[in-house]
Amino acid sequence: MLPRHARVVARLLERLPGVGERTAARYVLHLLSSEPALTTALARALEELHVRVRPCERCGNLAEVDPERVESPILCDICADPRRDGSLLCVVARVQDLSAIERSGAMRGRYFVLGKLVSPLEGVGPDDLPLERLRARIVEEGVREVIVATPPSVDGEATALLLARELAQTGAQVSRIASGVPHGSDLEFADQVTLGRAIAGRRTGGA
Amino acid sequence: MLPRHARVVARLLERLPGVGERTAARYVLHLLSSEPALTTALARALEELHVRVRPCERCGNLAEVDPERVESPILCDICADPRRDGSLLCVVARVQDLSAIERSGAMRGRYFVLGKLVSPLEGVGPDDLPLERLRARIVEEGVREVIVATPPSVDGEATALLLARELAQTGAQVSRIASGVPHGSDLEFADQVTLGRAIAGRRTGGA
Repeated sequence: MLPRHARVVARLLERLPGVGERTAARYVLHLLSSEPALTTALARALEELHVRVRPCERCGNLAEVDPERVESPILCDICADPRRDGSLLCVVARVQDLSAIERSGAMRGRYFVLGKLVSPLEGVGPDDLPLERLRARIVEEGVREVIVATPPSVDGEATALLLARELAQTGAQVSRIASGVPHGSDLEFADQVTLGRAIAGRRTGGA
Repeated sequence: MLPRHARVVARLLERLPGVGERTAARYVLHLLSSEPALTTALARALEELHVRVRPCERCGNLAEVDPERVESPILCDICADPRRDGSLLCVVARVQDLSAIERSGAMRGRYFVLGKLVSPLEGVGPDDLPLERLRARIVEEGVREVIVATPPSVDGEATALLLARELAQTGAQVSRIASGVPHGSDLEFADQVTLGRAIAGRRTGGA
């Protein structure tokens, strides 16, 4: 049984994704048996997290902000980078997905973070998505292709269909990332839906 | 790629046991997409962790301390509890092990946290263990039985042998927790050493 204040810290750590009672207690005991400087550094860094890291006002990605001189609008590194291809816009559900695509190095355009997916089960309808802001960006920035990179789930597909329809009038071409058998995986263990998509989305020419 | 300050927080979180780059980034993104109040509460609670939670000066367990009025000596709940059996002392390597034994509810005595195990590989010798403090406690508190609950590893067994020898002159009986096949496990998957110990440590009488 941890002392009261250690339990207070543990219960807050339990709010992190995938952290249960045991893991939280392990974290607290590790901090207590380490140099106090580590805990203090973590406390101070957390105290400033929401002040220094803010949503990019153009795309929804995370942006570093100097609290001494907040610029307006707040722009992330990608939106501020003039070498990015402004005619290519990748729409993602979450910042995590944006980070994953950035790690692939396959996207040279900019992004738009929806923040959510249409989901009848969770009561999220088309009106809850920032479609107006997305359309305005496409028109203002002269975007020629919108790559919809929502996940290949029911909600992700529904959102992709909605976007294809809603963005038709902007004149931009709307494409969808490919869904199929992941690199390095074994066909034997791929599920039916994935295999069905891999076959339906087949390409000629051997690439 | 996370903004600079988010990476600072992530790198500190990576110092927690079992937390890699991916998990740390996941924690940071979760905090950033949650109410700022959660991050602030966590920061403030961590800031006070080492102030409010201190080692018990008698046994090495963790003790809650009111920073406004620090008592001397600092005692943990177990050492301060008069209902505990003072004639029974359980020696453990770490606070985590003490917590695990407390959860079992099988120990009604008090504890002594060694803090380390003898380990020739890591250069920890008998002189690095707090044997003098342990012997003094046994004598002063009239301990009749010392239960050595170091882990059933090479270092844990070496430490148990050392304690049996070094505590012989105190007059207290020195016992060792049983090692064998864990409850609910399958004999088929138990390793050779565990099965060997289970057989060597067999008990008559069917219990």
